[in-house]
Amino acid sequence: MQDLVIVGGGPAGITAGIYAARKKLRTALVSSDFIGQVGLTGPIENWPGEASIQGAALVDKFEDHLRRQAIEIIEEDVLSITKNEHFIVKTEDGELTSRTVLLATGRTPQQLGVPGERDYIGKGVVYCTTCDAPVYQDKKVVIIGGGNNGFSSAIELTDYATEVTLLEIADKCRADELLQERAAKKGVSIHTNQTITEIVGDDYVSGVTLQDGSSLPVEGVFVEIGSLPNSSLAPTEVKRNEHGEIEIDYYNCATSLEGFYAAGDVTNIRDKQIVTATAEGAKAALSVYDYLQFSPKL
Amino acid sequence: MQDLVIVGGGPAGITAGIYAARKKLRTALVSSDFIGQVGLTGPIENWPGEASIQGAALVDKFEDHLRRQAIEIIEEDVLSITKNEHFIVKTEDGELTSRTVLLATGRTPQQLGVPGERDYIGKGVVYCTTCDAPVYQDKKVVIIGGGNNGFSSAIELTDYATEVTLLEIADKCRADELLQERAAKKGVSIHTNQTITEIVGDDYVSGVTLQDGSSLPVEGVFVEIGSLPNSSLAPTEVKRNEHGEIEIDYYNCATSLEGFYAAGDVTNIRDKQIVTATAEGAKAALSVYDYLQFSPKL
Repeated sequence: MQDLVIVGGGPAGITAGIYAARKKLRTALVSSDFIGQVGLTGPIENWPGEASIQGAALVDKFEDHLRRQAIEIIEEDVLSITKNEHFIVKTEDGELTSRTVLLATGRTPQQLGVPGERDYIGKGVVYCTTCDAPVYQDKKVVIIGGGNNGFSSAIELTDYATEVTLLEIADKCRADELLQERAAKKGVSIHTNQTITEIVGDDYVSGVTLQDGSSLPVEGVFVEIGSLPNSSLAPTEVKRNEHGEIEIDYYNCATSLEGFYAAGDVTNIRDKQIVTATAEGAKAALSVYDYLQFSPKL
Repeated sequence: MQDLVIVGGGPAGITAGIYAARKKLRTALVSSDFIGQVGLTGPIENWPGEASIQGAALVDKFEDHLRRQAIEIIEEDVLSITKNEHFIVKTEDGELTSRTVLLATGRTPQQLGVPGERDYIGKGVVYCTTCDAPVYQDKKVVIIGGGNNGFSSAIELTDYATEVTLLEIADKCRADELLQERAAKKGVSIHTNQTITEIVGDDYVSGVTLQDGSSLPVEGVFVEIGSLPNSSLAPTEVKRNEHGEIEIDYYNCATSLEGFYAAGDVTNIRDKQIVTATAEGAKAALSVYDYLQFSPKL
């Protein structure tokens, strides 16, 4: 019987693992992957204390820190989580019973699905503007997606890039008028009815190809067509919001199901950042510790 | 006119500064001190990605990261903060006007005020058990303070230390009975009517002297007599809780006064940890950015 099973090996899950182990909770962390969104990111400049660090290097530091703890690491996918008397976490090759569960499975950015996209992740293809905008100082960029996120990204990028183009696949952009007006004022070039067919480059992105065969030379492609929380493993009793995010008590990461906690990008927190995910993981582990101290041994 | 004035140079203020600068807010950070509680801590083992780092080294990394940003750093104390049309932040040598203010002034642990205490901070004298307990594996420790924090610390330390003694100055401990019982069961040696008169040692703590002149040989002295939030600079309109902590909206770090934000240990968040403080600082800066985008230019 575990005190805590953590599902997910990103910044939230790893930090929860570090904190839980230090509290001497009997903890297992299950994840087939320690790379996640961070590992696919190019230089990260907003992780406190590191002026610039590659995503993969930061992930390595996190994983190394985790592996020094007294914690069981199970490198498998989780198939299901159910609660009877205890929680049952089914993995590919086994089954864990636990007094509590922490879901920290993150989000999956929606991809364009065009040739070149995967090859240039972290080399010009970006899924998080707040993370990477300053890298594109004095460069040309294109944003794909005409929703609020796309326009917010475009506006932010006008502070850095020399040319900012926004492409929307439909014949009309869905973003708030206010944002559309501001983007236009700040010189964003906006085009509807545009589909990207390929992302091209050498070591780094050099441009995109459009549906009519024309090319747009850019060094950054910001994909802002949405992302989905990986919340499907949560038992049905766990409340989600309209975006499918797990609704947590912001104070302590508790969910609507007793003993079931969630942390990081899979939840309805405001800012999906590495630093916020780590903090939510720490908070969740400390909450679980307090919960177990003051709840009867099941 | 600043967009944002950050008051405080600890993990919350510094991270807010990094995020605000990256969002190109016109930002000033005012702090006479970048050392704070972290800088006085010995090895830190729960900052994600660093298995063990000295408090002073981590503070240096944070400060270096901040100083690379486009942000005005004013190394003075703040004397007062008021709000009329804008916020007015008075410093020792000047005055700033700003559209928003973020208070990130942290907490001050209450000290015993005995000889030796200051000399051994980070060398055996500890003010945060969650941070440092594992360092005292197989060592003897004493906890000063018979409240809930003192007893929780003592219980946690029984998982590491070989001998755990708790001293209370009054004739009775104030902690919850449940905690007192559990501590007794776990072998904590509890003594009331005990006053420490000196902390002694060589390079590190080797013991404490009691009021009757007797000594207790220990390698760790955990001071758990409370800490106070440094919230006095917040304008009177800003709501505090019964502990004097600034009450924030956990979602976005807003306070009861429009345009006034707070982050980190000075607030009523659950866990006062470095990683949570940094995340709160990031969240506050991103909230301020959104607030300024959607509020009329004052």
